[in-house]
Amino acid sequence: MESFIDVSPDSDFPLENLPWGVFKARTSTSDDTPEVHVGVALGQHVVSATALHVAGYLRDLPEADPRVFAKGRLNEFMAAGRPAWKAARATLQKLLSSSEGELRDQPELLARVIHKQEDVELLLPARIGDYTDFYASRQHATNVGAMFRGPANALNPNWLHLPVGYHGRASSIVPAGASVRRPWGQVMPAGASAPIFAPSSQVDFELEVAAFIGPGNALGEPISASGAWDHVFGLVLMNDWSARDVQKWEYVPLGPFNGKNWATQISPWVVTLEALEPFRCSPPQQTDPEVLPYLREALPYTYDVELAVDITPAGYGRATTVTRSNLKHLYWTFSQMVAHHTAGGCNLRPGDLLGSGTISGEEPGSRGCLLELTHAGRDELVLETGTADVEGSDAIGAMVAPVTSGVRRRYLEDGDEVALRGWCGGAGQPRRIGFGLCNGKLMKCRT
Amino acid sequence: MESFIDVSPDSDFPLENLPWGVFKARTSTSDDTPEVHVGVALGQHVVSATALHVAGYLRDLPEADPRVFAKGRLNEFMAAGRPAWKAARATLQKLLSSSEGELRDQPELLARVIHKQEDVELLLPARIGDYTDFYASRQHATNVGAMFRGPANALNPNWLHLPVGYHGRASSIVPAGASVRRPWGQVMPAGASAPIFAPSSQVDFELEVAAFIGPGNALGEPISASGAWDHVFGLVLMNDWSARDVQKWEYVPLGPFNGKNWATQISPWVVTLEALEPFRCSPPQQTDPEVLPYLREALPYTYDVELAVDITPAGYGRATTVTRSNLKHLYWTFSQMVAHHTAGGCNLRPGDLLGSGTISGEEPGSRGCLLELTHAGRDELVLETGTADVEGSDAIGAMVAPVTSGVRRRYLEDGDEVALRGWCGGAGQPRRIGFGLCNGKLMKCRT
Repeated sequence: MESFIDVSPDSDFPLENLPWGVFKARTSTSDDTPEVHVGVALGQHVVSATALHVAGYLRDLPEADPRVFAKGRLNEFMAAGRPAWKAARATLQKLLSSSEGELRDQPELLARVIHKQEDVELLLPARIGDYTDFYASRQHATNVGAMFRGPANALNPNWLHLPVGYHGRASSIVPAGASVRRPWGQVMPAGASAPIFAPSSQVDFELEVAAFIGPGNALGEPISASGAWDHVFGLVLMNDWSARDVQKWEYVPLGPFNGKNWATQISPWVVTLEALEPFRCSPPQQTDPEVLPYLREALPYTYDVELAVDITPAGYGRATTVTRSNLKHLYWTFSQMVAHHTAGGCNLRPGDLLGSGTISGEEPGSRGCLLELTHAGRDELVLETGTADVEGSDAIGAMVAPVTSGVRRRYLEDGDEVALRGWCGGAGQPRRIGFGLCNGKLMKCRT
Repeated sequence: MESFIDVSPDSDFPLENLPWGVFKARTSTSDDTPEVHVGVALGQHVVSATALHVAGYLRDLPEADPRVFAKGRLNEFMAAGRPAWKAARATLQKLLSSSEGELRDQPELLARVIHKQEDVELLLPARIGDYTDFYASRQHATNVGAMFRGPANALNPNWLHLPVGYHGRASSIVPAGASVRRPWGQVMPAGASAPIFAPSSQVDFELEVAAFIGPGNALGEPISASGAWDHVFGLVLMNDWSARDVQKWEYVPLGPFNGKNWATQISPWVVTLEALEPFRCSPPQQTDPEVLPYLREALPYTYDVELAVDITPAGYGRATTVTRSNLKHLYWTFSQMVAHHTAGGCNLRPGDLLGSGTISGEEPGSRGCLLELTHAGRDELVLETGTADVEGSDAIGAMVAPVTSGVRRRYLEDGDEVALRGWCGGAGQPRRIGFGLCNGKLMKCRT
C-alpha cells in the first residue's frame, strides 16, 4: 500500500496507520475551512479531513452526521461507530494512494488538504468528558504493593477479581509537546510530626496506554465484555505525571488527588483498532482465580504494542531509554475495563478516556515508572549525557556537561524531558504502525 | 422586597433568592427564543433570562459576553464573574418588583418570560466538565472511621491537615426528579472466599452540598484561599447515591469507583452567594492543629444552611425526616477546598462541581447517610407509613399498607424516595432562602 505522499520506511505513520488527530494550521487558509481541523497523519504530513469535507468528500459515512469533520474535535466521529470509521479509512486510503489521481492531481485542493506536520499545532483529539485511570498491570501492582506491604501482601485482595480504577481529572490533560510544571503540594517528610507545603521532590512519569471511547452507553445500561472493544475508537500513549510524595500523604482513603491532577499528557494521534488489527494477540490467562462471568469474553484479545520511555536529562541532548514494555503485558484488557466501568450502570460518552495504569513487564528493565525503577528512590538510575546541548539547558541555566559520563536520577529534575514511544511491527514483521511521541518537559515550580 | 408575581411566605424562592437554573418549556414559544432556557426561580414560577435576552434585556453585564443567556447552559454566565452576577440579579429584581411596570405591563413579553414551574422540565444547570467530591465533615469522617478502625483511629493522619477529596464521575450526574436504578456490582459477601456479582444490597444516600465553580484558573496557577469564594458561583444540594457493599470491596487502594459512579443527583436551582449573604457565619475553629498557610483565610466564613433528608418508603405516601444537619458543621469550607484543589496547579473550569462530602453534625439525628444512621446496617431505622399511597407504589407493585405502623430500613429498598431539603432563615429571621428539593426514587435493578 503506497501513497503519492512520500513516507519513509521507518515512519510511524504509513498509509496503513492513518491515526486521527485535531490540529490548527499555522498558515491561514483562504476558503471556508474552519480553523481547527480534524485529520490523519501520513508520514511527515497531516491530511485534513475537514478540508476534504469542505470540498465535498467524506460526507456519506454510515450512520454518521455529514458534518462530523466540521466540529473541530473528534467526539462526533468517535460516536459514529465502527462502520463509519472503516468507511472513512477506506476513502482516505483510496484518495491518498499512489494509483489514484482524484486528490493528487488537483493542486489547489491538495494545498488545502495536505500540511506538513511542522506547520500545524496539534491539539487534544477530543473534548474529554471524563477520564478514568486503571491499575491493570499485574507486574506494576505487584512491584508497588511489595514496596509498601511486603512481597507476601503485594496484591490487594480485590486485585485479581476486578480491574481496579479511579476517576481522574479531565481538565488537566494536555497534548504531547506541552511542558508541565513541578507542583507544590502538601507532603509529610520522613520522620516529621507535621506536614509541610513544598515543591514536590518526587516527580515521576507513568508509562500508560489510554483508550478513547467511541459510542457510549446510556446511564443504567452496561456494556458487556464481549462487545466492549466496539466501544473503543483507538489508543494513545499516556504519561500520567505523578508527584509521589504528595500522593503518598493524601491518598488514604479516597485515592490519588493532587498527586496526579496537575498534568496528564497524551500523544496527539489516536491509532485506530483497524490499524492495529494485524497485531492482535492473546492477553494473559485469567485462571487463578477465574474472573466473574461479567468480565469474561468468548475470545479475549489485546494488541502487541511495544512501548519505551526515553529520558533526556536537563541540559543534555541525549536521551536514554529507561524502560521497554508492551501493552500485551496488561492483565486486564481495555474491553474488561469498559465492561467493569459500566457494570453498575455508569455511562461512558464518546471521547471519554480510559488509561491502563502504568504498564510494567516481568524484567527489571520493563518497569513503567521511576517509583519502580529506583525502588521508591532507594536506587539511582544512570542516564547517559552525550554532548552538552545548549538548547536543552534553558530551564536550569547554562551547564557545562561532561561528554561521556552519566547523570543520576532517583526522581525527575527540572528540565528533564520524558518521551514515551509506542509501535507495532517493523523489522520484517507487518508494516510498522507507530503512535508518535508523547513527550513533555518538566519545568521548575512556581516561585 | 415584593414582586408582582405572587410568592407565598414559606416559598423557597422569594425575590431575595432568584436561584439560577436551566429548563425546557413544555409549551413551544412562537418567537426566536431557543428551546432551552436559562433563568431563575420565583415562587411557583420560573423567569426566563433567555426570553428577556431575546427581548433586548440583560445584554450589557460587566465583562460578560452579551449572549451568556442564549447558550442553553450556565457555564458562560458562571465564567463571567461576580460583577456580572450582581448586575443580572439587580436587573431581574428591578424588572420583577411590584413597583416596576416595564415587564409587568407588557402582556406578550410577560407570557414569554414567565412560566409555571409545573410547565417546564428542569435540566442540569451547566455542562459539568469535572466533578470532585470531598470528605469535609469531621463528624462524618469520624463516625465512618470509628466503624472501620475503632474510635482511637477514627480520623486518618492526613484528615485534619487537608480537605481529603477524590475525582468523581461527571457523566452520571442527574437532576432532581430523576429515578435512579439500583446497581449491580462486584461484592465480597461476609465470610465468603470469593466475590460475587449481584445487585447491591446496601444502597445509601449521602446528604451533601455542592459548589458550582464560576471563573476558573489556568493550569499551573493556583487560587489562594482568601480569594477562593469569588470562584464559587453558587450552591446546590447533592445526593451522592452510594452502593456501600460495592464500595467496600473495591475502594482499596484507589478510592470509590463503581460504588458511586452509577448516579449522583443535584437540585436544579443554583443558589447564589449573593442570596446567601445574610446567612454568613463562622466555620469551625482550625487550631488543633493549625492548618498550613495555603489553607488559611484572613476572615474565614461559611453559610448557615439548614439541611434535612426525608425518606418516603416504597408504597407509602408519607415522608419521615431521618436527619437534620447544617452546612456550617463542615470542618473545611468550600474556599479551602478550592485552594487545596488548585494548590498543585490543577485547573478548575466554569461549571465544575465540588461536593462537600456527607454533612453530619454532632447529634445522632444529624448523621447524613444510612451507613452512619444504622451503624453500617447493625441498627434499623423506623419510617412512618401514614396512609397507603397508590401512586407511590408502582415501582414495587400494589401494596396494602397499614395506616399507622412503621417500616424498617437498614439500607434503601426499591421504590424508596429520598428528598434532600436545604434552607436559610424564615421563622422571624431574614426572609427564607431555600434550595428546593433534591429528590429521587430508587428503582429496582436491571434483570
